Amino acid sequence: MSQVITIAEIENKKSVGERSRAKDPRELSLRDELRELYQRVRHQTEELCETLVAEDCVIQTVPEVSPTKWHLAHTTWFFENFLLQAHVPDYRSMHPQYGFLFNSYYNAAGKMHARPQRGLISRPTLKETFDFRKHVDSRVQDCLENCNEEELRRLAPLIVLGVNHEQQHQELILTDIKHVFSMNPLRPAFRGQKRTGPAGSDGVRWQDYSEGIYSIGHEGSGFHFDNEGPRHRVFLAPFSLASRLVTNQEYLAFINEGGYRRPEFWLSLGWIAINEKGWTAPLYWENRDGHWWQMTLAGLREVDSNEPVCHISYFEADAYARWAGARLPSEDEWEVASEGAPLQGNFLESGYFHPAPLASHDAHGALCQMFGDVWQWTRSAYSPYPGYEPVSGALGEYNGKFMCNQYVLRGASCATPRSHARRTYRNFFPPEARWQFTGIRLARDAHAS
Amino acid sequence: MSQVITIAEIENKKSVGERSRAKDPRELSLRDELRELYQRVRHQTEELCETLVAEDCVIQTVPEVSPTKWHLAHTTWFFENFLLQAHVPDYRSMHPQYGFLFNSYYNAAGKMHARPQRGLISRPTLKETFDFRKHVDSRVQDCLENCNEEELRRLAPLIVLGVNHEQQHQELILTDIKHVFSMNPLRPAFRGQKRTGPAGSDGVRWQDYSEGIYSIGHEGSGFHFDNEGPRHRVFLAPFSLASRLVTNQEYLAFINEGGYRRPEFWLSLGWIAINEKGWTAPLYWENRDGHWWQMTLAGLREVDSNEPVCHISYFEADAYARWAGARLPSEDEWEVASEGAPLQGNFLESGYFHPAPLASHDAHGALCQMFGDVWQWTRSAYSPYPGYEPVSGALGEYNGKFMCNQYVLRGASCATPRSHARRTYRNFFPPEARWQFTGIRLARDAHAS
Amino acid sequence: MSQVITIAEIENKKSVGERSRAKDPRELSLRDELRELYQRVRHQTEELCETLVAEDCVIQTVPEVSPTKWHLAHTTWFFENFLLQAHVPDYRSMHPQYGFLFNSYYNAAGKMHARPQRGLISRPTLKETFDFRKHVDSRVQDCLENCNEEELRRLAPLIVLGVNHEQQHQELILTDIKHVFSMNPLRPAFRGQKRTGPAGSDGVRWQDYSEGIYSIGHEGSGFHFDNEGPRHRVFLAPFSLASRLVTNQEYLAFINEGGYRRPEFWLSLGWIAINEKGWTAPLYWENRDGHWWQMTLAGLREVDSNEPVCHISYFEADAYARWAGARLPSEDEWEVASEGAPLQGNFLESGYFHPAPLASHDAHGALCQMFGDVWQWTRSAYSPYPGYEPVSGALGEYNGKFMCNQYVLRGASCATPRSHARRTYRNFFPPEARWQFTGIRLARDAHAS
Amino acid sequence: MSQVITIAEIENKKSVGERSRAKDPRELSLRDELRELYQRVRHQTEELCETLVAEDCVIQTVPEVSPTKWHLAHTTWFFENFLLQAHVPDYRSMHPQYGFLFNSYYNAAGKMHARPQRGLISRPTLKETFDFRKHVDSRVQDCLENCNEEELRRLAPLIVLGVNHEQQHQELILTDIKHVFSMNPLRPAFRGQKRTGPAGSDGVRWQDYSEGIYSIGHEGSGFHFDNEGPRHRVFLAPFSLASRLVTNQEYLAFINEGGYRRPEFWLSLGWIAINEKGWTAPLYWENRDGHWWQMTLAGLREVDSNEPVCHISYFEADAYARWAGARLPSEDEWEVASEGAPLQGNFLESGYFHPAPLASHDAHGALCQMFGDVWQWTRSAYSPYPGYEPVSGALGEYNGKFMCNQYVLRGASCATPRSHARRTYRNFFPPEARWQFTGIRLARDAHAS
Repeated sequence: MSQVITIAEIENKKSVGERSRAKDPRELSLRDELRELYQRVRHQTEELCETLVAEDCVIQTVPEVSPTKWHLAHTTWFFENFLLQAHVPDYRSMHPQYGFLFNSYYNAAGKMHARPQRGLISRPTLKETFDFRKHVDSRVQDCLENCNEEELRRLAPLIVLGVNHEQQHQELILTDIKHVFSMNPLRPAFRGQKRTGPAGSDGVRWQDYSEGIYSIGHEGSGFHFDNEGPRHRVFLAPFSLASRLVTNQEYLAFINEGGYRRPEFWLSLGWIAINEKGWTAPLYWENRDGHWWQMTLAGLREVDSNEPVCHISYFEADAYARWAGARLPSEDEWEVASEGAPLQGNFLESGYFHPAPLASHDAHGALCQMFGDVWQWTRSAYSPYPGYEPVSGALGEYNGKFMCNQYVLRGASCATPRSHARRTYRNFFPPEARWQFTGIRLARDAHAS
Repeated sequence: MSQVITIAEIENKKSVGERSRAKDPRELSLRDELRELYQRVRHQTEELCETLVAEDCVIQTVPEVSPTKWHLAHTTWFFENFLLQAHVPDYRSMHPQYGFLFNSYYNAAGKMHARPQRGLISRPTLKETFDFRKHVDSRVQDCLENCNEEELRRLAPLIVLGVNHEQQHQELILTDIKHVFSMNPLRPAFRGQKRTGPAGSDGVRWQDYSEGIYSIGHEGSGFHFDNEGPRHRVFLAPFSLASRLVTNQEYLAFINEGGYRRPEFWLSLGWIAINEKGWTAPLYWENRDGHWWQMTLAGLREVDSNEPVCHISYFEADAYARWAGARLPSEDEWEVASEGAPLQGNFLESGYFHPAPLASHDAHGALCQMFGDVWQWTRSAYSPYPGYEPVSGALGEYNGKFMCNQYVLRGASCATPRSHARRTYRNFFPPEARWQFTGIRLARDAHAS
Repeated sequence: MSQVITIAEIENKKSVGERSRAKDPRELSLRDELRELYQRVRHQTEELCETLVAEDCVIQTVPEVSPTKWHLAHTTWFFENFLLQAHVPDYRSMHPQYGFLFNSYYNAAGKMHARPQRGLISRPTLKETFDFRKHVDSRVQDCLENCNEEELRRLAPLIVLGVNHEQQHQELILTDIKHVFSMNPLRPAFRGQKRTGPAGSDGVRWQDYSEGIYSIGHEGSGFHFDNEGPRHRVFLAPFSLASRLVTNQEYLAFINEGGYRRPEFWLSLGWIAINEKGWTAPLYWENRDGHWWQMTLAGLREVDSNEPVCHISYFEADAYARWAGARLPSEDEWEVASEGAPLQGNFLESGYFHPAPLASHDAHGALCQMFGDVWQWTRSAYSPYPGYEPVSGALGEYNGKFMCNQYVLRGASCATPRSHARRTYRNFFPPEARWQFTGIRLARDAHAS
Repeated sequence: MSQVITIAEIENKKSVGERSRAKDPRELSLRDELRELYQRVRHQTEELCETLVAEDCVIQTVPEVSPTKWHLAHTTWFFENFLLQAHVPDYRSMHPQYGFLFNSYYNAAGKMHARPQRGLISRPTLKETFDFRKHVDSRVQDCLENCNEEELRRLAPLIVLGVNHEQQHQELILTDIKHVFSMNPLRPAFRGQKRTGPAGSDGVRWQDYSEGIYSIGHEGSGFHFDNEGPRHRVFLAPFSLASRLVTNQEYLAFINEGGYRRPEFWLSLGWIAINEKGWTAPLYWENRDGHWWQMTLAGLREVDSNEPVCHISYFEADAYARWAGARLPSEDEWEVASEGAPLQGNFLESGYFHPAPLASHDAHGALCQMFGDVWQWTRSAYSPYPGYEPVSGALGEYNGKFMCNQYVLRGASCATPRSHARRTYRNFFPPEARWQFTGIRLARDAHAS
């Protein structure tokens, strides 16, 4: 993980350099900032779960979906294991088995409960899980209160990493509970309500980018995951990027023209996947009497033509692009193009929990919907950047060991906390994954002028 | 299902004939008896769950284990579907989908939720499930109150069948929650406490029975399942039956002499099963530093040598018998021999929830442990008795359609309600099933004198 | 295995008693008879394969189907292992690994090649396999020539058992190659040609049998498998048996009335099986433009209405019977009824290799088609007879260890050698097996007069 | 597919440019060259199979291994389908079903036999398959003889593509029959004999390459697959490449230091794979009494320390590299570095069919073993080059649709025909594939001078 000094950086507001130049007596101390950050994000997680009952929090519908209870405990274990047990000499865990139960995949941190069995344990109960959170929160806060300045600077990166980790799990809590509710014939609702969208959707515009050597990856001292670096140069041919996301209406045209029945659009593995799994539409879509409905976190409702298409696999994104005479962007292209786009959009904080229709393009011609709404599949297999080295120890397992048979997604979604989104952020999922908020932005080759 | 008139019969106390002869002014009316029976058994189910929390009641560890919540709802649906919806004209279900969710396997009653998915639904919540129970209980009781005598006689068999059905699920609630807790590395306890057993166990005695034509199956008008009849004659060769159940100590000798590594003791399918599944001891046994421990409903504790061996498959029972130079009894032999044995033992009501050691043999030489403790595997494949006809309609699916690739077990277990045990009772499970309280009584061929 | 003295007995012609009474100077010596028997049956096997090419003999389409080459080698290994290696001191196997490769399931005879991998070995080649046969044949014949009389009497039962074993594999060679050819889109033919059947089929007549105690199982010293004994008494209620097999026409009526879509006819496991496997007709049937065709050993041809229905599972036989308002006979009933039926029919030697239509009922009112054409599913789970003990040693694994989750079939089929059929013969297969020549004879309960 | 004019180009001897400059009266005409090329390569395939018997040619051990018979037929179908049926008006196939049976994966060419079922068909026999080859060969040669010059130029690329396709299958015939023989406990040998290797192996040297913009991909008009273009620019950071392949001795050190037991070296999917599959060494290695043996095409023999390690997955190559403090090269790095290496090595034509030890480094310091011996895993996921467009029609399915979840391998192997190797060649397999001749060349980051 990258070193981090201030909270401001975590939130992508300013670099360390800016911070030291702008020293202001009213500014919070690092200690205060860490405390505030920790409390705020930990609280946000619990707030997210407030409409769930104990039964909801136990269920694992498929191996990749974890119970809410597990997310609540695992994020807590992360602080316990990497901060308290590593740095607080007299720390004692609440339970000798929690380390086993709530370690996700860190082999260097010890053995772990098998992932597909997370839904088989009723204990600790939800209440006991919250007690575990309180126990750890209290010790983390003691630690932040009482450590000296040198210790504080050593612990700060762990706090910030743990907070970012927790934010990733906030998104997963939403995507996982959506899957859980979708498997229940009663189609329960999480919460959120339908936002009235615009009547129509602007046509796509194509934004051109010229060939050249570009620098890719995170720069500066702000927080970022290790996979976002090192910053390095790439050569790009000229390309164009669509000004907005693909809508449900556009995706329906693909379906209606036999998209799921015509092998010529599909990668070989994609064609196998849709046939074996019987996919004929995005995840959560159901056809009732000729009308398409979709399960949302606010319950079942009719598909809105103007919303960005969502819950599609890489295979479907790629097939759609081929049908549309375009292709998916590479992650480098996306990152280069994102420079002009404002880091704003429909994030978790909107409370909408669903991708929103685009009202109209930006008057200034900037790319729209680059952040929020849905993660955007790129054509880039998830690989290490040149010169990439994972950090040593268990935290080196955070990202690097997953660089195989996955694809990079860029942007952020309606389930991503706003302060967690970043231009250089590399999200990644296997090509068949559909339960995240994932969608499509098209790209095309262009010709050098 | 057999016709039933009085509660007394349900509880196997006396036949209809006896009842009409013995009419006594102090005797409860049929209406009162049904009401009392219904309330008592329904209440017993809920009492059984009183130490469970909501999280416990959601989990399905393997397809054959159902969540507690499902048992609570399914037994309620049974009354709703077969009694209220069939016989109460204005009855309206609490929820249009409950019929789908809580139908177990009655094709004639409509479509049903897939069995392996019972652990995927958090809603209805535990509280909503109890509301469903209350709703149905109240309507059933209204119905019992208000129907006329003729209706009462028509409904009585359904009430009694539903109550017996509920008792079967009381046993399953216990065996299923035991499996759920056993999959949790924290090894939670349900309840019950260790009973101090005797220091040793009497040796086995062999009781002889002579050849002849015997009548098998239920006789009289008391309640019984349809698979217990019709009563019919069979010819039996002379045989001997062991006076008591096989103990853990005896079973350990089989293990220690390589029982699980020597193919000569095993049926072909059994040998495949133990090798594929890696079985080397009964279910719930764990070897820790050379000592055998077992998961019980009171938590993990050391294996008690004098207790009956439990949680073994038909394959293991059969292999043990072959190793011991004996065989399993046929269900006919068991039923013939059971005539002399008192219908008493360690049942659910003891609150022990675990098989108990035998203190000493009966002074009168009767067979011991014939009822309670553990169900006893017989060598009889589960088949229809000669002349067997299932009742018409959905209730005909209760027993008959399962007569394939299962074996009959006789007796009852420490999880069976006392009033549910019956000499002619035919329990049945596939030969690889181990999560029920299942054990061994040996038999041998004898020679006609 | 039962002791055997003469060939006459093997062929079910007469008992030992008859033989000693009828001593005749022209009669062949035991030595001559064994030699002749061995040569004839071994030769018959090879003759059966004469239209196959090397490629045909390698293929295993599903785990239960073995390659022809394996059958040729395994039957040879049987004599090598149980006769030559056990009784001929200086015998040396052709290859140290053949014992491993061609042992089927005899754990006591050593480790074995996994059954599902039989189709993965091209070597020994077909020619090498025939060399193996020649090698063993030559040594067996040396042994028969040179042993003394006492040795001869000791070896005779092994020769006879090996010959009966070889006959079982003659049937399997046919059923297995039929499956192999059926999986080839080219639908190759084995051989045999269409026999012209009668224009119509007589209606079924019901033959009644009265209640009573009957003796069941093999009697006398003629050859039989150990599972056919000991002879024992059973009590049977009155029953009726259909005079002939169920025809394709009758089975089509079941199909056309929704037999495969209506759960009320099916055992629970049967309903699961047909839905998971997508069965809608017997194995080898294909619907082309509304007409039913079937794969036969003579290639693909239209279904003949008057032929006995064939290649159905126990589940289908049982469902058909329920639909027809009847049931399957028990094996005891079948055996009792078979007493009046001549041991003749459409066997392997007819060269037809397919069940044949019944021309007309026997004038004397005997049951028709009791032997040959198709094996008849009974409702009897395959269990040990009272007092059954397998022989000691590896040969004890021949039958006994399979007595679980299988059903008994009686009669014989068009692929059974004539001299292999026997009234007490207990064939057995799992309830889902369909690739044998299996069909249906109906039974009904009757009432005592 | 790229357009191709002359055979010289196919064989990578010279470019079209060179050819036109060097026009020589003695040079063969295009027609002659195509005829000669076609005959030579088709003949080479058959020669390769000459030690196989019919039984060997039928077997499919795992879905990715095809029977020899299928390879012989499929390569023939390729010419039949893409050349004869597309371009010869009166062509009639030998059999209407061969198109179905021998189409591999070209959806646009019609339906196809399922890949995992290729080992289930004994017919057409091996002889009939050779007849099919003769039939097609004869018609292709007629066509080459009789077409006019314009047609000839149109057909030439198809002939050349078909020939290259056939060469790919020559390699697969070898790797597949090796797998088939390895599954036979008799461990049959294909052919080839042990070459005496050198006593020791030179240490690795590291060759440095500087940062810069490089052009990658095929250039000129010589034959290449569509996935090798278009040629495009990439920016590379400085890197070093190992002068030779990793040896068995080096790989054994990895094994002996617990390489397969230490998760820190492995990608997450790799760790799962080796644990699920129980891998502890390369494919075809067996440990007998503490010594490592390996199955080769010449039979089983001891592992030779100095040979390049072979039959390892991407996961193992990647883990080994991490253990060795290095990494795998990217395919761009490999291609850049290959410029100085001679296109020579241990190819199929050597008849050795096994990777060979390196005697000593080249005196001129060039990279060794860049071609032949084993394919070299790169860290590059198999993706389209910028601007890549598959050709239209069924042949567009040749390469492009497989660009997902596979890794690129560079170089060639001891089973690759010499004339098939090419610097820009992009071979590709999933990361768990091991049955090809696959090995390791290490790379490292370097620092710009």
